[in-house]
Amino acid sequence: MVPTDETHTLLILSRDSDVYLQILSQAMLPGLSIVTPEDVEKALWFGADCDLLFGEPSLVSKVINYLPMVRWVQSTWAGVEPLFSPDLRRDYILTNARNVYGSLMSEYVFGYLLSIERRILTRWVLQQQVVWDETPSSTLRGKLLGLLGVGTIGDCLAKTAHYFGMSVNGYTRQSESCPYIDRYFHPGDLRDFASGLDYLVCTLPGTPNTSQLIDETFLSYLPQTAWLLNVGRGSVVDESALVAALSQGRLAGAVLDVFMEEPLASGHPLWQTPNTFITAHTAATNYPPDIAGLFIENYKRLVRSEPLLYQVDFNEQY
Amino acid sequence: MVPTDETHTLLILSRDSDVYLQILSQAMLPGLSIVTPEDVEKALWFGADCDLLFGEPSLVSKVINYLPMVRWVQSTWAGVEPLFSPDLRRDYILTNARNVYGSLMSEYVFGYLLSIERRILTRWVLQQQVVWDETPSSTLRGKLLGLLGVGTIGDCLAKTAHYFGMSVNGYTRQSESCPYIDRYFHPGDLRDFASGLDYLVCTLPGTPNTSQLIDETFLSYLPQTAWLLNVGRGSVVDESALVAALSQGRLAGAVLDVFMEEPLASGHPLWQTPNTFITAHTAATNYPPDIAGLFIENYKRLVRSEPLLYQVDFNEQY
Repeated sequence: MVPTDETHTLLILSRDSDVYLQILSQAMLPGLSIVTPEDVEKALWFGADCDLLFGEPSLVSKVINYLPMVRWVQSTWAGVEPLFSPDLRRDYILTNARNVYGSLMSEYVFGYLLSIERRILTRWVLQQQVVWDETPSSTLRGKLLGLLGVGTIGDCLAKTAHYFGMSVNGYTRQSESCPYIDRYFHPGDLRDFASGLDYLVCTLPGTPNTSQLIDETFLSYLPQTAWLLNVGRGSVVDESALVAALSQGRLAGAVLDVFMEEPLASGHPLWQTPNTFITAHTAATNYPPDIAGLFIENYKRLVRSEPLLYQVDFNEQY
Repeated sequence: MVPTDETHTLLILSRDSDVYLQILSQAMLPGLSIVTPEDVEKALWFGADCDLLFGEPSLVSKVINYLPMVRWVQSTWAGVEPLFSPDLRRDYILTNARNVYGSLMSEYVFGYLLSIERRILTRWVLQQQVVWDETPSSTLRGKLLGLLGVGTIGDCLAKTAHYFGMSVNGYTRQSESCPYIDRYFHPGDLRDFASGLDYLVCTLPGTPNTSQLIDETFLSYLPQTAWLLNVGRGSVVDESALVAALSQGRLAGAVLDVFMEEPLASGHPLWQTPNTFITAHTAATNYPPDIAGLFIENYKRLVRSEPLLYQVDFNEQY
């Protein structure tokens, strides 16, 4: 990298501060000083001179209004909803984490898809009863996956689906750049998009446009044999409609990592609906080396006065 | 295909006779007549004039001695042990099913690998207790897979392992043709091959050379954190040694599709050893369109007087 006279001070505010500090230190980024306060309160003291901020949106949202020097925030998450709160400043560049969750999401989604096809849970239950279960497995090959949202995570899921011999329907507002989508659908085509799907995977962010998109009508478009997987945001799904569809057998099952309210309340019916797998927003937990790599790439761009990757539009909330 | 005056009569002897008959009929193979008797007894009557035989080795072994006209047998299975019985004739060409189980084996193996990494079973058990389980998942990325046997199934598993960002050690007698194996090992290198593995997958056929290869010594080379998966043949594993290793926590767990005796006896300790998944030789059940495709390809070669694919050596028993 070209030497620079420019200096920057970075505040890291993350559960994984230690790991990030280690990786960024080893990267020897020119002109960069780093502070890693233990908690939010100390961040307010030590962060006063910082112009860069790197961390979880839930923590960043607590300090951003009190750190007026900050002009760039790199989120460690894809979802940055906490920073859209109307009382928070928006006069800085916000970049989120993209292109780093694809492989983890792929492991989550295909872990469940293969478990379903291979009857892993059912076979294990039968094993407890010492049953030699010769029921054949089904296969992903030839099946149809629908992707609601085709961003960087959707790209990766579509690629993995193709690897396993599936076809892929993609539903998106505009972009048609993913080579692994066999057919694209757009707003207005929801019924055609959904019909014939074996699996629907929602990767949509939580925005005013996506709220409750998966409602009773949309669920009625899906075949009774289809599974719904939600790894996007809970607000995209009308949970009452989903509970009804699962309870009445109008849907084969659901794998849910995100909910309207998290943690999912202990009395929520989704804990008990048939063929429902609940996970606690753990589908793609941070993989610090990747997220750090994203910061490093963007820092190099900053120093070269190039546009940063994955800038969030505060108006689109994405 | 070039018209031919040659005629052949094929006996199909399979659980999936109807499907095979349909596919082969549609293929309009020149000069081919097909008979599909209902059972072994009828096969002896109707098969007297047949020169070709296509079916399960367990069924073929019951008729092959009584059908002297047969000069080529296409097995629907990869494993053809029933045809090595010393009282059976060997004066015919035996071809087995290869290159058709890779994708199904890949779904089986990676279904279990991802279930383990993503804690799918543990999370489901916790869900029954209404526990919001935020334990992060681990990932296949960066982990080391060892393949004991690198045939066409091993090739496909290695490719899938690479797809998920794993490294692959391959143990083989000779061939080093698979581009997805990072390091090859050969007889004599078992200790080096095994050390550091996260997962060991055995795809070896049951032959005199592979019998009890996975014994107490070999198991002691594996890290305590490693999982063993056997999708080859049960005879490759010393089951007593495996039971001891699992019971004493010297191995993280096992996923077993094949056993010394199948079905696995109801009193066998492997039903109960910790972290053990038992499946009933269902890892790669037949996918008739693929197997039929193999017969079609070989039939075309036969008509053109070209060598058939995947000929079995009766001496090597593979």
